[in-house]
Amino acid sequence: MAGSTLGHLFRITTFGESHGPAIGAVVDGCPPGMSLSVEDIQLDLDRRKPGTSRHVTQRQEADQVEILSGVFEGKTTGTPIALVIRNTDQRSQDYGDILDSFRPGHADYTYWHKYGIRDPRGGGRSSARLTAPVVAAAAVAKKWLAEKHGISFYGYMTQLGDLEIPFEDQSQISQNPFFAPSAKIIPELEAYMDQLRKAGDSCGARLTVVAKNVPVGLGEPIFDKLDADIAHAMMGINAVKGVEIGAGFKSVAQKGSEHGDEMFADGFASNNAGGMLGGISSGQDVVVSIAIKPTSSIMSPKQSINRAGDVSVVQTKGRHDPCVGIRATPIAEAMLALVIMDHVLRHRAQCGDVSVSTPRIPAQRP
Amino acid sequence: MAGSTLGHLFRITTFGESHGPAIGAVVDGCPPGMSLSVEDIQLDLDRRKPGTSRHVTQRQEADQVEILSGVFEGKTTGTPIALVIRNTDQRSQDYGDILDSFRPGHADYTYWHKYGIRDPRGGGRSSARLTAPVVAAAAVAKKWLAEKHGISFYGYMTQLGDLEIPFEDQSQISQNPFFAPSAKIIPELEAYMDQLRKAGDSCGARLTVVAKNVPVGLGEPIFDKLDADIAHAMMGINAVKGVEIGAGFKSVAQKGSEHGDEMFADGFASNNAGGMLGGISSGQDVVVSIAIKPTSSIMSPKQSINRAGDVSVVQTKGRHDPCVGIRATPIAEAMLALVIMDHVLRHRAQCGDVSVSTPRIPAQRP
Amino acid sequence: MAGSTLGHLFRITTFGESHGPAIGAVVDGCPPGMSLSVEDIQLDLDRRKPGTSRHVTQRQEADQVEILSGVFEGKTTGTPIALVIRNTDQRSQDYGDILDSFRPGHADYTYWHKYGIRDPRGGGRSSARLTAPVVAAAAVAKKWLAEKHGISFYGYMTQLGDLEIPFEDQSQISQNPFFAPSAKIIPELEAYMDQLRKAGDSCGARLTVVAKNVPVGLGEPIFDKLDADIAHAMMGINAVKGVEIGAGFKSVAQKGSEHGDEMFADGFASNNAGGMLGGISSGQDVVVSIAIKPTSSIMSPKQSINRAGDVSVVQTKGRHDPCVGIRATPIAEAMLALVIMDHVLRHRAQCGDVSVSTPRIPAQRP
Amino acid sequence: MAGSTLGHLFRITTFGESHGPAIGAVVDGCPPGMSLSVEDIQLDLDRRKPGTSRHVTQRQEADQVEILSGVFEGKTTGTPIALVIRNTDQRSQDYGDILDSFRPGHADYTYWHKYGIRDPRGGGRSSARLTAPVVAAAAVAKKWLAEKHGISFYGYMTQLGDLEIPFEDQSQISQNPFFAPSAKIIPELEAYMDQLRKAGDSCGARLTVVAKNVPVGLGEPIFDKLDADIAHAMMGINAVKGVEIGAGFKSVAQKGSEHGDEMFADGFASNNAGGMLGGISSGQDVVVSIAIKPTSSIMSPKQSINRAGDVSVVQTKGRHDPCVGIRATPIAEAMLALVIMDHVLRHRAQCGDVSVSTPRIPAQRP
Repeated sequence: MAGSTLGHLFRITTFGESHGPAIGAVVDGCPPGMSLSVEDIQLDLDRRKPGTSRHVTQRQEADQVEILSGVFEGKTTGTPIALVIRNTDQRSQDYGDILDSFRPGHADYTYWHKYGIRDPRGGGRSSARLTAPVVAAAAVAKKWLAEKHGISFYGYMTQLGDLEIPFEDQSQISQNPFFAPSAKIIPELEAYMDQLRKAGDSCGARLTVVAKNVPVGLGEPIFDKLDADIAHAMMGINAVKGVEIGAGFKSVAQKGSEHGDEMFADGFASNNAGGMLGGISSGQDVVVSIAIKPTSSIMSPKQSINRAGDVSVVQTKGRHDPCVGIRATPIAEAMLALVIMDHVLRHRAQCGDVSVSTPRIPAQRP
Repeated sequence: MAGSTLGHLFRITTFGESHGPAIGAVVDGCPPGMSLSVEDIQLDLDRRKPGTSRHVTQRQEADQVEILSGVFEGKTTGTPIALVIRNTDQRSQDYGDILDSFRPGHADYTYWHKYGIRDPRGGGRSSARLTAPVVAAAAVAKKWLAEKHGISFYGYMTQLGDLEIPFEDQSQISQNPFFAPSAKIIPELEAYMDQLRKAGDSCGARLTVVAKNVPVGLGEPIFDKLDADIAHAMMGINAVKGVEIGAGFKSVAQKGSEHGDEMFADGFASNNAGGMLGGISSGQDVVVSIAIKPTSSIMSPKQSINRAGDVSVVQTKGRHDPCVGIRATPIAEAMLALVIMDHVLRHRAQCGDVSVSTPRIPAQRP
Repeated sequence: MAGSTLGHLFRITTFGESHGPAIGAVVDGCPPGMSLSVEDIQLDLDRRKPGTSRHVTQRQEADQVEILSGVFEGKTTGTPIALVIRNTDQRSQDYGDILDSFRPGHADYTYWHKYGIRDPRGGGRSSARLTAPVVAAAAVAKKWLAEKHGISFYGYMTQLGDLEIPFEDQSQISQNPFFAPSAKIIPELEAYMDQLRKAGDSCGARLTVVAKNVPVGLGEPIFDKLDADIAHAMMGINAVKGVEIGAGFKSVAQKGSEHGDEMFADGFASNNAGGMLGGISSGQDVVVSIAIKPTSSIMSPKQSINRAGDVSVVQTKGRHDPCVGIRATPIAEAMLALVIMDHVLRHRAQCGDVSVSTPRIPAQRP
Repeated sequence: MAGSTLGHLFRITTFGESHGPAIGAVVDGCPPGMSLSVEDIQLDLDRRKPGTSRHVTQRQEADQVEILSGVFEGKTTGTPIALVIRNTDQRSQDYGDILDSFRPGHADYTYWHKYGIRDPRGGGRSSARLTAPVVAAAAVAKKWLAEKHGISFYGYMTQLGDLEIPFEDQSQISQNPFFAPSAKIIPELEAYMDQLRKAGDSCGARLTVVAKNVPVGLGEPIFDKLDADIAHAMMGINAVKGVEIGAGFKSVAQKGSEHGDEMFADGFASNNAGGMLGGISSGQDVVVSIAIKPTSSIMSPKQSINRAGDVSVVQTKGRHDPCVGIRATPIAEAMLALVIMDHVLRHRAQCGDVSVSTPRIPAQRP
């Protein structure tokens, strides 16, 4: 199965390389009749865009999306929506070194062995730039989910390098470049990043994303569980090395008497489950955390080999994010939205005429 | 997309419920000409089987597999291999309570809302028993991967409840019921489990599985990365709440100068990557860790609601694993094998005629 | 993509060989809550069964289906329905000849080159016996389509060898072994078959199948058009060499002024379209015709080669259908039902909330 | 499953509407390392282009393709190849009538009921213009198949309206606008078309496409047979109402003693099979014929209804092909190439290490 496609019923296929003519996505299966404009998509793209603070890459990309199809007189027609973003910053660079030597932590070595050829310009297809079409496509899903089901998404940083970030104030998330839910930790984060940049090094991050108001019943019992599909989507984001649902790795040390979320008529008492039971959404908030590794492109030299198999020293120049996690929150939200959108349609397909008299309880007790 | 299928080219579809007539799997896409017998499959099934120590459920299931198709005179024919396991222990039980009340931490509530009907006998399809066909199917993949590529798999427990288990001796893994790579920690683990059982409670576990000798080049650049598909498969195992590749969540606090595995002609210097770079296998060991939550079925009473939405108290009787993680190592190995098998075929399909003169370096420096 | 699966949302995977232990199908994605019993399935299986007249193979197969999963207390649960049919007539035969020589018109040569191994017992997987699980699986779809949408299916023979069969009386179809919609042509058909059998030869057939009361809107605009998926399913039946929708090949010589079905408030004026416009169902009857080639297994000797590439003469013994088309009507109905079922669910997934005030016109003017 | 995708391993997804900003395709799964330029693709696009003779639509479209991704320094990289064709002839037209009334034989009525909205400009997505991206994508497949396997494709018209076209000279096919394999019938075809145009009417056509030098072994035994996938692809072309493999509907009246192609060491004696036995390619030429209905857009008025369900008379203006079959030969070749390409990769995935000592016999005896 060719692999550049995500989802079954709401299905996106992306294309493009970091420094080729354009990147983009085809969104197939979108329900018809929804209002959709470039503005609806641009908002999320801008949240992900590089160059917005000194803590991220200074590369300038307009990231201006164009809708090539699937919309007529401002409404989705049900046919594929093609989204294209031209690469404006294709500065010709000397990539001779990168072509010859394999950067540690990068996809250079693996692409080379897999394909026998690769596009070295800015990382080619392995560049984090390829998350832009995903964010664009997900904006379509988010809009439909909000309008039809009142589902909303938000995400935030919970750890930067070894600094844990407390959840103090959700309204702060959009007020700082880190997506941190705390105002007072910002100076500490900034100092941390400034020092890191000065040292020519990089660090990792931990993010949490949440979907609220998800219907009960999404997901399949085996294999295509909702959490399994979420894990697939999240681990598919560049640099992600771990995925947790709800209590995640903390659940290892929990007792059964503690972990299982008790249920009351006025809601669930807790949310260790992270919104899924038996792979199927429970109506609790869907809560997903991811670990993002430190950027591999650093100024400090590292040992490697070249195409001949000989020893080589690699030192990255250019404009790289010292922590790719900083811009990843909108990407993780996007992935979560795409998976939920697909499962809303899958669920409707099979169980569209199911109704039970049992009331749905609230996501959380008051 | 109907969800009971895993894989694209090596593809398994499972069926069955815990206490129905039978469970099983259809394995489609197996390469032809490989020797295959019931014995090849039974070995792994027996490693997963219940009732083998006092620390797991005492339910007795023969788990005897029958091959219904796809094998002629002891060799695979390339056509679907149907594997069936009859359920021998279908003791008629009073499931009235379970039918009416939703057990916290279980799929009862979500199945009910999704389907409007469910099979309450032993958890129906949400039972961990449904991992048996997966293990059976994966035995076919493991055999082919061993014969054609010399790939091998092993897994072990790294944490039981709050007890961390040191990796001391790989040969011990098969010598104790916990799959623990240490002999001297066994008494401690046993005491822990005995106390837990006495308390009517349960605990979680953390496991690590490894694939050795995986070729360089498996996985797709975007979405169907090898790690993404592994995360999907692992999170699809019952009770799994977290998945890590290589350094996993530890990579958050690592610096870039530390995380990126340096390369030398005699091998990689470390394995923070866990065997994948840019979603594509690097030839390093594939290393995956999972978090398994504590069993939800416990003797202690928990608050819940019933189908009418009224308050209810649930207390589980019957023969349950106090730690489902104990028997999960063969299941995690199976999932890893299925994903790698699928990607070996996918890679051959697209890149079967690629060859590079660059030498493949060893998985690890001496 | 492993190929033994049909459909996306209502998805069947078959397994088995003609003379192996069993054949069967896993039906995934069936909506929950529908009554389903063995009897519901057996009816169609019996219509397809061999040995019911002197004009078909005299092989005796009970074709008794067993439901292994997916049904609880007589209702579908929404989880996979596994259907198994044991092969009771596995008489040990001398297949040495068939193993060595390639029968003209058979899959012997192609399987051998594809797989390097094949199951020669009764044709293995290439046997028409493998249509039995398809018929069984489709019985589930037919029941749901009838109950939820009032869709019904029927099929009939329109040509046997060079004898055209007039459509005179639909009620006759079930009254003769040919599925012929005419009583008075039966003696002629019987004489034709008797002579053919005496000559040790075989003939082809042309069948038409119809689905009535199909909703408007099924099918995708490009690629997965409803007619395209029907063509795929029909051409996938053993021995089928041609598929037509509506006017089919007759439309080549039609003028545009004649072909396009005019529309009136009381219905379509004609049905050249065969129930689809632009790949999407129109509410007209879905009308599909197929060409079935003459059985390749005949008593007369034919020239061939053997595995060494040397000349060989092949003469088939055993119990073969002199016209496989005679028993194919239930199979073609089954395939049509499976495709429509899948598209009903696909349509509901994407367009479940579409409503237009435009009235649906009747399939045909009075 | 969203439906705008064809193929599994060599997979194309198209997008666009007749008069939107652009149409295009994403080609995923292309093997890496093949030379590819715009010129390689443009050649086939130009064969399909409108406006090249007086017998086809006079609409002018440059149909100039742009490669947005997947090619680096003139070679495929193995990542998705995005192909875009801008719509240059988007003349603003008065489509009010078409919006309100449903043209007989068109997708107007079905799209409207399916989606509740549609793009009426030039037929939107149901326009035959959407075959351009398919032809572009298939040019990539054709190139690889030619280079790696020596497979070639050609197609020709065998019937125009009620005029049968004899196969006299393959070299003539590219010498006339009809793709007719005969020089001397051209005046008759031209006269036929001129008269038809004058009458404001349209006619159908019958085409045959051939693939030469296809390897033995492509296709799956059940469901995804090579012929089944070909039928799916062909019936997915606009206006196609019938598909035949080899002898097709003629096989109905054949005897088994006549139909089965005898085999000799120097080749097959005939090709009734049309290149497939048991759904798997035999090494004979793959021969496929299709019926194309007469264009529905004609000058003569036809009865229809409008969105309110009231009676309406529709008369098409504008620049339409009086026989869409005339330009369809490159499209049918394209579809055939796409299916074979996908199956070559599928076959390599599963059976890449199969080898048999049995010699492959030639496609046809001398």
